[in-house]
Amino acid sequence: MAYASLDSILNPKSVAVVGASDNPMGFGYNFMTHLKSYGFKGDIYPINPKSDEVLGIKAYKDLEDVPGDVDYVIHAIGVHLAPMIIQKASKKNAKCVHVFAGRGAETGRPEAKQLEADILKLGKELEIRLIGPNCLGLYNPTCGLSFGYDFPLDAGPVGALIQSGGNSTDLVHIGALRGVRFSKVVSYGNALDMNQNDFLRYFTDDPDTKVIVGFIEGLRGDSREFMDLLRKATAKKPVILCKGGRTDAGARLTVSHTASLAGSGKIWETAVRQAGAIPVRDLDELINMAVAFSMIPPIKGNRVGIAGCGGGRSVISVDEWADNGFEVPALPESIRQEFKTRGSQIWDWIGNPADVSIVAPNDPFTMPAIVDLMLKHEDFDFVSADAQEDPPFSETHFIASVKENIEGYVQNRKENEKPLLMVFDERSVGITEHDSWNYRTRAEMRTYLVKEKMPFFPSVDEAARAVNEISKYYNRKEEMES
Amino acid sequence: MAYASLDSILNPKSVAVVGASDNPMGFGYNFMTHLKSYGFKGDIYPINPKSDEVLGIKAYKDLEDVPGDVDYVIHAIGVHLAPMIIQKASKKNAKCVHVFAGRGAETGRPEAKQLEADILKLGKELEIRLIGPNCLGLYNPTCGLSFGYDFPLDAGPVGALIQSGGNSTDLVHIGALRGVRFSKVVSYGNALDMNQNDFLRYFTDDPDTKVIVGFIEGLRGDSREFMDLLRKATAKKPVILCKGGRTDAGARLTVSHTASLAGSGKIWETAVRQAGAIPVRDLDELINMAVAFSMIPPIKGNRVGIAGCGGGRSVISVDEWADNGFEVPALPESIRQEFKTRGSQIWDWIGNPADVSIVAPNDPFTMPAIVDLMLKHEDFDFVSADAQEDPPFSETHFIASVKENIEGYVQNRKENEKPLLMVFDERSVGITEHDSWNYRTRAEMRTYLVKEKMPFFPSVDEAARAVNEISKYYNRKEEMES
Repeated sequence: MAYASLDSILNPKSVAVVGASDNPMGFGYNFMTHLKSYGFKGDIYPINPKSDEVLGIKAYKDLEDVPGDVDYVIHAIGVHLAPMIIQKASKKNAKCVHVFAGRGAETGRPEAKQLEADILKLGKELEIRLIGPNCLGLYNPTCGLSFGYDFPLDAGPVGALIQSGGNSTDLVHIGALRGVRFSKVVSYGNALDMNQNDFLRYFTDDPDTKVIVGFIEGLRGDSREFMDLLRKATAKKPVILCKGGRTDAGARLTVSHTASLAGSGKIWETAVRQAGAIPVRDLDELINMAVAFSMIPPIKGNRVGIAGCGGGRSVISVDEWADNGFEVPALPESIRQEFKTRGSQIWDWIGNPADVSIVAPNDPFTMPAIVDLMLKHEDFDFVSADAQEDPPFSETHFIASVKENIEGYVQNRKENEKPLLMVFDERSVGITEHDSWNYRTRAEMRTYLVKEKMPFFPSVDEAARAVNEISKYYNRKEEMES
Repeated sequence: MAYASLDSILNPKSVAVVGASDNPMGFGYNFMTHLKSYGFKGDIYPINPKSDEVLGIKAYKDLEDVPGDVDYVIHAIGVHLAPMIIQKASKKNAKCVHVFAGRGAETGRPEAKQLEADILKLGKELEIRLIGPNCLGLYNPTCGLSFGYDFPLDAGPVGALIQSGGNSTDLVHIGALRGVRFSKVVSYGNALDMNQNDFLRYFTDDPDTKVIVGFIEGLRGDSREFMDLLRKATAKKPVILCKGGRTDAGARLTVSHTASLAGSGKIWETAVRQAGAIPVRDLDELINMAVAFSMIPPIKGNRVGIAGCGGGRSVISVDEWADNGFEVPALPESIRQEFKTRGSQIWDWIGNPADVSIVAPNDPFTMPAIVDLMLKHEDFDFVSADAQEDPPFSETHFIASVKENIEGYVQNRKENEKPLLMVFDERSVGITEHDSWNYRTRAEMRTYLVKEKMPFFPSVDEAARAVNEISKYYNRKEEMES
C-alpha cells in the first residue's frame, strides 16, 4: 500500500462514530469524548438511531444520513453488524472502517471466523480498508484522533504499531510520563485486512517518524515480506519490537486474544536481530528503548562518566554498568587537578562515579561542575547522572539541593554535544505518601525533565541496556553504510 | 557477641546526640528531629556547648554533664573528635557509640586510617561497642529510634543490615510503599568494630525477625565465620544479600565509599547460594525478595493460575511466567463447566490467564470468581492477579471496576490458604498527572493493599523471579531437614 494512500487514511478529514451515545458505559461514548477533548480537526458525525445529539454534537440516525462524504468510520457496535456498516460506509466514500468491536475469530467460535471472512471479502470488494476488528484503532495527535484518556496533545517522533489495545494505551501513558511522544499509534487487533506490513511500511516512509516501535502477537499476511520490510526500515531508522507469545504457553494465548498464531521466540529473536531491529521482552523494555532512541543522540563508545547518588547507590551503579559491558574509567587526573585548583576539599577523594554525599556545601566541587568536565573530557563517551536519592536532610535544604543539581544537568546537556542521560527511579506511592513534599518534589522534577526533553531511566540497569542497544544500532548502521 | 548483649545495645533506654542543634543544615538537628517525631521511649539528651535547649528539649554543654547514665551516644560532629567523645561516653557507662561522622578510612588518607585505628583501640579498651563510622546507624521502630524521614512507625518481620546509609534509607522508603516492615535496620558503614557478623548473628537469634536482608560492600572481620553464620541463619530463616562491588570497577569504588575491599562477584554468589541464602543484584531485587519472603506463604510447586489484565498484557504475562520456568496450565474443564452452569457467555472462550477485557458487565464470570476457583483447584499451586490496566472507560465506571476486583482479590486471599499475589506496575508521575483521578485511584489502591498485607510486585517478571526463590528456599529447607 502506497505511503500517500495510507497517510490519507490515517489523517481523516471527517469521522463518523457508529454507536455514539451519551452513556458513559458504551465505547461509542468514549470515542466521541476523545474526538471532542483532543480537538479533532474535521467533521464529527455521531451515528445513533435514537438520538438527535450526542455530547452536544448533531447526531444522525443512520450513517447514510450524513450529508456528504465520511473519510473514517469507527464501528463501535456489535461485530455482527460490521458487514452492514461497511456497505453503508462505501456509499459515503469512506476510505477506512475501524472495526473496534471484538468477539471475532479470537473467540475460537466457527461462526465468528466465518463472519470475519465475510467482512474481509466485503471490504476488498468495496475497496474499503479495515483496521481491526478487536482493537482500539488510531491515535494521531496531529489531527486530534485518540482512543484513550489523558494522552499527550503534542506529537513526537515515535511511530507505534501495537496489536493489543491495552498495551497501546499503556505505551502512550507510561511513555508520556517519560517524555516519549508519538507521530501515530495504531492498535490493529486481529489485523484482518491492514496488518503489521502496512504499518511498518508506512512508518518507514513517514518523515515525521524517527523511531518505530511495535508489539506483535502473530504476523499476518506475508511474513517473508515483513522481514524484507524490516530490513529496509532498520536501514533508515531504529525499529524496536516486542513479541507476544514467545513461549509455548504464551503462543497458546495469542489465539484467544487476537486470533494470532505466534511462532517460536528464539527464531523470532534471531530473525529480528539479523534484520537490524531490536527485540525486547516486554512493554517496559519497549518504552526504555523508545526513550533512548528518540531522546539520546548516537553513542558509539562504551566509557561512562557517572554523577552518582550516595556511596551505596554509586557502588551498585558501577556494578550494573560494568555488568552490561561498559567501562567506568577512573577519574582523569586533569579533572582532579581542576578541582584542586578551584580549592575543593575532596579533589583527592572523589572518583567516578562522583559520590554526591561527600560533597560539602560551598565546596567548588558540585555535581553539575563535574558533569560538565566529564562531558568535555576525551576519556568519556557519555555521562549518566543520578537524579536523587531519598532525603537525609529536612525539607527545605533537600528540595533546594535536588533542584539545583537537576537544573544543572539540564544546563550541562544544553551546553555540550556529548550525550547526557539520567537515572530517576520509579516510585508508585500510596495515598498516604501522595502529597508529601518528597513525592511532590519528585513529580515536579519529572515534569521539568520531560519538558526539557531529558532522557531518564528507572534504573541503572535499564539505562545501560538501552545505551547498549543504541551503540549496537549505530555501529551496525555505520558498518552497513561503509 | 551474645544476643542479649546486642539486643540491649539496639534497644537503648537513653540516647545522647552530640552535635544536636536547631540548625536544619546539621545532622545533629536531623537525629534530634527523628527522636522526637518517632516518639523515642526513653531519655533524650542533646549535647551542644552553645545551647540550653534544642528542639524544646533541655540541652547539656558536655556529655559528662548529663545526670546519670547514657546507653547510646550518637556522635554527629567531626570524626576527629570521636576519641574524646568515646572517653566521655565511657564515664557515662554508655554501651554503644554510633559514629555517624564520615571522612574516615574511606577517604584513603593515611591520617584518617590512623584515626580509625585509634578509635577502635579506645573502644575496645573502654568496652564500648561502636556502630560506624560513616553510617546512619539504627532504625528501631519499637523503641522509636530512626535515622530517616517518613519511616513507618510500626515494626515488622524484616531485619536489615545495610552497609550504606543511602541504601538503608531507600530500603525503608521503597519497602514501606510495598508493605515491607522492619524489626530493625542497621546502617553500619565502615564497620570498624561491630560488623556484618554481629548483626547477622543477632537477627538469626532475634525472635521478632523472620526474614534477614543485607547490603554488604566488603566483609569485615572473620569471613569464614560469616559463611558459618550464614549457613546457620538460612537453616532458620530466609536471608537475602546484595553485594556491592561485584565487578572490578565496583570493587574499586567500595574502597572510597566504606573503605571495603570487595571480592569477586562470582565467588560471592556461589558461596552465598551454597549457604542457602539468596544473592540479589540490586536494591529493587532485594525489596522484591523482602516482599516475597515476608508476605507470601511457602510455595513449592510451579503451576500458576493468572487473573490477567487485557489480552496483550496477559500474553506478555504468560511469556514471563514461562520464561522463569513456571507452568501455566490450561483452564481446567471443571472451572469452565462451573461458569457454564452459572450462565456465563464466555465459558468456552476464557482461559488461563483470564483476560479481564472480555468480561461483559453482569456476566457471572468475574475476576475474583475465577481466582476463587483457581485457588481451590488442585491444578494450581498459587495464583497471581494483575491489579489493573489503564482505563479504556471514563472515570466512574473504571474506578468502580478496579476497586471491585482488588477488593475481591483481598477477600479471595482471606478465604483461601493457597498463596495469592498481585502484580501492580510502578508509575512515577509528573506533577501534571499527580492529581488525576487515575493516579489518585492507583495510590488509594496501593495503600489499601499495604494495609491488607497483600504482596504485590512491579512486574510479572519480578513476581516470577521472587516466587522462584521462595520455592527454591523452601524446597531446599525441606530437603535439608528430611
